[in-house]
Amino acid sequence: MKKMISQATIDRLPLYFRTLRLVEDEDLTIISSDELGRRLDITPEQIRKDLATFGQFGRKGIGYDVSELKERISNILGLHNHWRLAIVGVGHLGGALANYVNFASLGFSVVALLDRDKRIVGNKVNGIEVCDTADMNEVIASTAADIGVITVPAAEAQSVADMLVAAGVKGIWNFAPIKLSVPPAVPLVNEDLSVGLSALSYHMSQE
Amino acid sequence: MKKMISQATIDRLPLYFRTLRLVEDEDLTIISSDELGRRLDITPEQIRKDLATFGQFGRKGIGYDVSELKERISNILGLHNHWRLAIVGVGHLGGALANYVNFASLGFSVVALLDRDKRIVGNKVNGIEVCDTADMNEVIASTAADIGVITVPAAEAQSVADMLVAAGVKGIWNFAPIKLSVPPAVPLVNEDLSVGLSALSYHMSQE
Repeated sequence: MKKMISQATIDRLPLYFRTLRLVEDEDLTIISSDELGRRLDITPEQIRKDLATFGQFGRKGIGYDVSELKERISNILGLHNHWRLAIVGVGHLGGALANYVNFASLGFSVVALLDRDKRIVGNKVNGIEVCDTADMNEVIASTAADIGVITVPAAEAQSVADMLVAAGVKGIWNFAPIKLSVPPAVPLVNEDLSVGLSALSYHMSQE
Repeated sequence: MKKMISQATIDRLPLYFRTLRLVEDEDLTIISSDELGRRLDITPEQIRKDLATFGQFGRKGIGYDVSELKERISNILGLHNHWRLAIVGVGHLGGALANYVNFASLGFSVVALLDRDKRIVGNKVNGIEVCDTADMNEVIASTAADIGVITVPAAEAQSVADMLVAAGVKGIWNFAPIKLSVPPAVPLVNEDLSVGLSALSYHMSQE
């Protein structure tokens, strides 16, 4: 059964998950929505509302069981799948993503790097050898990559998306500033780094 | 007067702005919410609702005046300020941001790069020389940087934020996975690349 969960709630879940991991490392077994809110700078009301979306958690006046809540969020987000990423386009951004430590803390791992530039193919980035984009099918199959990450220029993004879908990835994370067409069965998330920057500009203009 | 505008609406405005720029380049002067929606993969109802937040736009059955709407969104987001960015931490992510083309399309420009690593100081990235973080005050003043971008490791992020605030930046865009304390007068936006990836994981798990 598909539940309707707002995008804003989904976007807060990884923050909850990561904080619960840190809390667990401190050997705490119970945490209140007040304390979780203090650590995340989110109101306790918002936290209780978000978590209530998934059913009954926590005991009034006591708090949430840290390990149970962490497990539940992991299941909702599908983090237990330990998705494997293939990054196509090993320029500045692709290289940065290959080295981004936050992915590992949520169970994601980068297993393949691809580029069509022969000067880059064969280089190692964070211990992973860059393969030729022309060998997409073999690379995706041999590394069992689930998610294709597109960090090529906009003009090449659709053809890379087509290749990734043909090679059998189950989802696409697109950083190219272009609207991509992919089959409905392949979820697509577009990332635009200037969205956060524009939000900052908005808040600075309100001062 | 501060208006209450939801974060989700604010996050869609830069997408509208960028699309309107492209529409303008095609010499179109009027665009319907249907056509804007088609280009952005957002429902026309959502677009009309978002834009209605800022007052009366568009004429029923005709559409929006492209140039007027673009100007209005630019004003709301504060893009006419042409904010100047100083990036602190010129590793993979800082280097990727220094080269990110999407910023320029919204009027942002990178004017300063800082790093405390003496092996990096003096290098040029995208035409900008990397300065020593120890010279923060002089660099921020001489480049008239408005926004401090933090791409250092989490352990160094708070001290860098303190230095940026002391140097007079008006806003902070933080990529370090840590909750920063800054004065209320300095807006702070935290960026976490794994949020989008977790949303993708969620959607893939629903298939």
